[in-house]
Amino acid sequence: MAIKKICVVVTARPSYSRIKTALTAIKNHPKLELQLVIAGSALLGRYGNAVEFIEKDGFTIEEKVFMVLEGENPTSMAKTTGLGVMELANVFYRLQPDAVVTIADRFETIATSIAAAYQNIPLIHIQGGEVTGNIDEKVRHANTKLADVHLVASEDAKQRVLKMGENPEMVFNTGCPSIDLADEIKKNPTLDFDPIQKYGGVGVEINWKEQGYLVVMQHPVTTEYASARKDVEETLKAVHELNMPTFWFWPNVDAGSDGTSGGIRSFREIHKPQNIHFFKNMEPNDFLKLLANSKCLIGNSSVGIRECSYIGVPVVNIGTRQNKRERGSNVLDTVYDKNEIIKSIQDRITSTDIVSENIYGDGASGQRIADILAETKLTFHKTIVY
Amino acid sequence: MAIKKICVVVTARPSYSRIKTALTAIKNHPKLELQLVIAGSALLGRYGNAVEFIEKDGFTIEEKVFMVLEGENPTSMAKTTGLGVMELANVFYRLQPDAVVTIADRFETIATSIAAAYQNIPLIHIQGGEVTGNIDEKVRHANTKLADVHLVASEDAKQRVLKMGENPEMVFNTGCPSIDLADEIKKNPTLDFDPIQKYGGVGVEINWKEQGYLVVMQHPVTTEYASARKDVEETLKAVHELNMPTFWFWPNVDAGSDGTSGGIRSFREIHKPQNIHFFKNMEPNDFLKLLANSKCLIGNSSVGIRECSYIGVPVVNIGTRQNKRERGSNVLDTVYDKNEIIKSIQDRITSTDIVSENIYGDGASGQRIADILAETKLTFHKTIVY
Amino acid sequence: MAIKKICVVVTARPSYSRIKTALTAIKNHPKLELQLVIAGSALLGRYGNAVEFIEKDGFTIEEKVFMVLEGENPTSMAKTTGLGVMELANVFYRLQPDAVVTIADRFETIATSIAAAYQNIPLIHIQGGEVTGNIDEKVRHANTKLADVHLVASEDAKQRVLKMGENPEMVFNTGCPSIDLADEIKKNPTLDFDPIQKYGGVGVEINWKEQGYLVVMQHPVTTEYASARKDVEETLKAVHELNMPTFWFWPNVDAGSDGTSGGIRSFREIHKPQNIHFFKNMEPNDFLKLLANSKCLIGNSSVGIRECSYIGVPVVNIGTRQNKRERGSNVLDTVYDKNEIIKSIQDRITSTDIVSENIYGDGASGQRIADILAETKLTFHKTIVY
Amino acid sequence: MAIKKICVVVTARPSYSRIKTALTAIKNHPKLELQLVIAGSALLGRYGNAVEFIEKDGFTIEEKVFMVLEGENPTSMAKTTGLGVMELANVFYRLQPDAVVTIADRFETIATSIAAAYQNIPLIHIQGGEVTGNIDEKVRHANTKLADVHLVASEDAKQRVLKMGENPEMVFNTGCPSIDLADEIKKNPTLDFDPIQKYGGVGVEINWKEQGYLVVMQHPVTTEYASARKDVEETLKAVHELNMPTFWFWPNVDAGSDGTSGGIRSFREIHKPQNIHFFKNMEPNDFLKLLANSKCLIGNSSVGIRECSYIGVPVVNIGTRQNKRERGSNVLDTVYDKNEIIKSIQDRITSTDIVSENIYGDGASGQRIADILAETKLTFHKTIVY
Repeated sequence: MAIKKICVVVTARPSYSRIKTALTAIKNHPKLELQLVIAGSALLGRYGNAVEFIEKDGFTIEEKVFMVLEGENPTSMAKTTGLGVMELANVFYRLQPDAVVTIADRFETIATSIAAAYQNIPLIHIQGGEVTGNIDEKVRHANTKLADVHLVASEDAKQRVLKMGENPEMVFNTGCPSIDLADEIKKNPTLDFDPIQKYGGVGVEINWKEQGYLVVMQHPVTTEYASARKDVEETLKAVHELNMPTFWFWPNVDAGSDGTSGGIRSFREIHKPQNIHFFKNMEPNDFLKLLANSKCLIGNSSVGIRECSYIGVPVVNIGTRQNKRERGSNVLDTVYDKNEIIKSIQDRITSTDIVSENIYGDGASGQRIADILAETKLTFHKTIVY
Repeated sequence: MAIKKICVVVTARPSYSRIKTALTAIKNHPKLELQLVIAGSALLGRYGNAVEFIEKDGFTIEEKVFMVLEGENPTSMAKTTGLGVMELANVFYRLQPDAVVTIADRFETIATSIAAAYQNIPLIHIQGGEVTGNIDEKVRHANTKLADVHLVASEDAKQRVLKMGENPEMVFNTGCPSIDLADEIKKNPTLDFDPIQKYGGVGVEINWKEQGYLVVMQHPVTTEYASARKDVEETLKAVHELNMPTFWFWPNVDAGSDGTSGGIRSFREIHKPQNIHFFKNMEPNDFLKLLANSKCLIGNSSVGIRECSYIGVPVVNIGTRQNKRERGSNVLDTVYDKNEIIKSIQDRITSTDIVSENIYGDGASGQRIADILAETKLTFHKTIVY
Repeated sequence: MAIKKICVVVTARPSYSRIKTALTAIKNHPKLELQLVIAGSALLGRYGNAVEFIEKDGFTIEEKVFMVLEGENPTSMAKTTGLGVMELANVFYRLQPDAVVTIADRFETIATSIAAAYQNIPLIHIQGGEVTGNIDEKVRHANTKLADVHLVASEDAKQRVLKMGENPEMVFNTGCPSIDLADEIKKNPTLDFDPIQKYGGVGVEINWKEQGYLVVMQHPVTTEYASARKDVEETLKAVHELNMPTFWFWPNVDAGSDGTSGGIRSFREIHKPQNIHFFKNMEPNDFLKLLANSKCLIGNSSVGIRECSYIGVPVVNIGTRQNKRERGSNVLDTVYDKNEIIKSIQDRITSTDIVSENIYGDGASGQRIADILAETKLTFHKTIVY
Repeated sequence: MAIKKICVVVTARPSYSRIKTALTAIKNHPKLELQLVIAGSALLGRYGNAVEFIEKDGFTIEEKVFMVLEGENPTSMAKTTGLGVMELANVFYRLQPDAVVTIADRFETIATSIAAAYQNIPLIHIQGGEVTGNIDEKVRHANTKLADVHLVASEDAKQRVLKMGENPEMVFNTGCPSIDLADEIKKNPTLDFDPIQKYGGVGVEINWKEQGYLVVMQHPVTTEYASARKDVEETLKAVHELNMPTFWFWPNVDAGSDGTSGGIRSFREIHKPQNIHFFKNMEPNDFLKLLANSKCLIGNSSVGIRECSYIGVPVVNIGTRQNKRERGSNVLDTVYDKNEIIKSIQDRITSTDIVSENIYGDGASGQRIADILAETKLTFHKTIVY
């Protein structure tokens, strides 16, 4: 039997965590060959230079695709996507994969989908079927309709993909590979490094060892990017006022990143907060360990909904970004208001009933994904079932 | 109340017929302003120079977007689409419309959808919810998931869009504007021009006035483009053997158009058929009159499923291109086999029970579309309903 | 000593003839490795499918770059070039050549130059220093200013490049590789194939064996493309009236190609010329043999100035396209006027004093180019000498 | 007589200063109409948001062209240029100018040149004929060969353009419009604002009022971008050690900007220099006033060669960036070595014989440019003169 060439396109730092264990499983599978393409902000220093971590993890990168237009506004997001289609069309033409994998719902992921589908290459979509409510929502479901195989992360997501008319034989609940990483941390959660020593970052020393610490990760919400700056200021004020040691992570690339980043920079200049230390990026494993030992994660990152639920970390989720995603009891939702955020953090760090849950996977998703890719007969012909 | 600016993007000759009466109604509506963008193959002489007909019909063209990459293979289709996203992003940024209209399911229509949706402009999709079975199928449903308002052409299509999870308040069965044009012809079907005299074309004179005539319009099927040439040869042989006067129309742009066109050219060189006259293009109204007076339409054009059903013209539909579209009793389906095609044509031209049906509209779709655009509160926020 | 990787970009059918023997010499040179990139119209069936001949000649193609925008107008020429820069930047980033070779002066050749120069890759320009007078003129000299090494085809060209301020150590008169091909033909000019039998083509049989024949090759002149149709009609009328057996070759891609092609098609429909047979393309060797045995070449192709001068074929050169190129005594210049063209052809086919000349090379250019590339120290630092 | 539409493309902050008075003169000229296009980094906050100053100065912007690819490496520079050609081709097609103006020699300026020349629009090149020695050198002279009219800034530059074979009737020494701005400052050099109060910036308060101050502006040198960080560190160390009040300006966009910026950021974190205050940008007039009142300008900006020569400001010019540009007696050249830089600064600030010179203009360039554009018969046909 012929080896199937599986081309995976990683376009951003957070997507890498959501696929890493699957990449390893594909690479090691006797019936599969991995063709790894790194594109978009995953190549850029400004967004955490994911490519370095990927190479350090031992993966061979088949192609690097520079496609991000500067501007960080809706127009440049659209143009980045269009350029991505053109570039990835070339890449797939050259690599001639048997299947292409597109991950989740970032705006540029549809470029992968179009470049593959239009060239009659079977398209695998990871983590469709979820619900949010902004441009990601449109992109995710459009990816579903362009894809031939659906590897979703929860039962709820599976039911939704089926309702949308996809062929039941092609929809699999594999769980999310990010939970595989969380599983390792859950089994061995010791914080075996000093974050500031290892990663440097910017800002004052904070006394996290004795007092414990919060973690903040807040991304701009694309369709409301004008208010990104105002939003982040509320969180900054809340965290500043609480005056607990805090590790704050810069946002990834999105329209409005300038708003969020600008808000942070300006706050830092004016208030010189003595309780906050800023990081640009961290290796995924280290990041999860940091979370596992934190008092609470604050912001709007999906890591709070997924990994933190599995590990059992308290989370204050702010705003609409994770809108309708399934969540566990670890999460408390709130709005962009300093006082509400303070109240929510106080609730979480004093709560005693936070338990681990299996909503987004059981720790074996990566291998499951590789096995399905190996065993499923891949095709690019599909028709809606109703 | 403010006038809404409605930007309609027409990317191909056949799309124009499917939107023409709506363009007129938008242009004349007191609450709407039309911003007409002509793009892709609609600008190219090789594909019938639709832009000339559009200007002749009195429409002002706001922008012309050259975006077609040469090659006519799947890779160039993808790259054309990517380039379209980049170019249309600029156009919408400049025109600042209140809504953008994308038409049906040609591969490049998703460029319009992405360029609008990513810039937070409400997206109107015309003629979603139908079923075919190749790349058009994927594109059409992806357009649905990117769009905020759905103006579909049949009740069946409406039910399908609703099942896919769209908000019922944003799904309207307007019928297809192409039926509005068909309605005029149905009311006054006289063939008031000599096709060869008016359009020239290529090939011998044929005695269509006394013997009646067939019409052929066969497009390549994108995902099977290698066989486009073989397919068209079967139809050519059948029509040649029947030896009835025939008007044959060149295919529009698609991967494989070279296959179909090459097959026609080669057949013509070798067999010098004395019963076939070839046209590149015809004004839509004249084309419908030609059909209304023909003995039968042969090929795989959607005009056979839609307009011909409404007017009551016999149709032999070959192959998978119109696969699962609803069809009336006028249509007989067959496969790419000379003998089967001959048998089907003979059946159709001797059939006596072909009646007109209203499946795709009642002749008032254009006005209905304009009214809905004027009255509906447009938004770019949407979430799947389940 | 390390092997130098030499990346040659061929973007059109005629460019291939101008580099073919150099490609062979580079491929066979012990100190060089050939990286062959085929791009633009060289990949398209409409323009003679040069890529097929190249593969048939045994070259391995490293990359195929689809970059031609449809439209054949000045805007699409510019956009094709811009796209070419983007695509070729990727290609060179991937191939990491030690030098890039750009050929002559077609509009898209500057894309190769920019993509190489901006990435600090030494750029070799073939056939700079000539003079014409339209957009090619601007492109050629701009290529010179972007290039680090200049391999020119005549002494006159060498002097001109030096006057423009280039470093004398980097300017070499190698002659033109197309003359190497001509040299083989000159040594063995027998027409050992039947053109119509071997290449098919379109049009009636013509009695070329007994009566001898003319060859026509006329390209549109870019900056005057509106008049391309009128120009070709004068030549058509002249050749038609002379009523001698004629082989006519379709033009290559350029803005206005539609004008020239349209003129030919229309003339053929109306006048059904009984003395002209049309070809789309021919293998370079066969084409030269055809010329070597012809009574006269008519049109505006540079082959008349170069190869025909070396072989000693009479040429009627029409219009401004070869404006200021050095030419031998075989060439008679004339204008786009039926009567002038007829008079000039009659002069040429009765002339008895046409001799072979060495203006553009001596038959050893290909090897000379490879040797220079191997021996010259390549750098991307340069400064104008005055 | 018809009004000529003059389309000027500004792609970066420094280019604006070099054209501003010409823009005003074109705008006010009765025979000219200004079509102003702002593109590239001139639109980006990261590079000083030149567009805001331009709008504040009362200019109407016809088009904004987002074209900068992220990456800041040679590949993204090439791709930015390619994208610029595609975008600007559209812009010129839409605006239909009678002439296009491209400014100087930044890498993306050739995009303007190609988009205009290929569409047969007369191209005006501002500030050709100078000499530097890296990629700017190639771009500048290639722009010259694509341009039809040359408006150069010095007599030396004029002679060089003529030597390159341009038509003498189309080469004009207008001087540089940036000198017009310098002229105003020279006439009224009072520093009538507090830089830190007006522009904020980053870093400690410095006692510039009593002790006087240095100004630093150092850009990365494109073709040596790996060493950009090391270079800037030498300057930082020198300025730090001198311990005089210093205003330091961030570099503009170029490959390597990250190297320079990274070097500055890192130095700041580690050494917390108490004598340096950092600015991102300043209105051109304010910047010149700041220079006029400074003790010395240090770095590699062309402002040191041009404006400072005219005003008579001492300059320490470091490295190869201004390599072979004509310079006045105000400039002392040195290399990237802390000790050499210190020595040079000490020489300059104690020198007593620095005088104003007219090398790059007399203060009336803007009006002269407008007059030439109005009176010269513009054409896109050109041929090298020898």
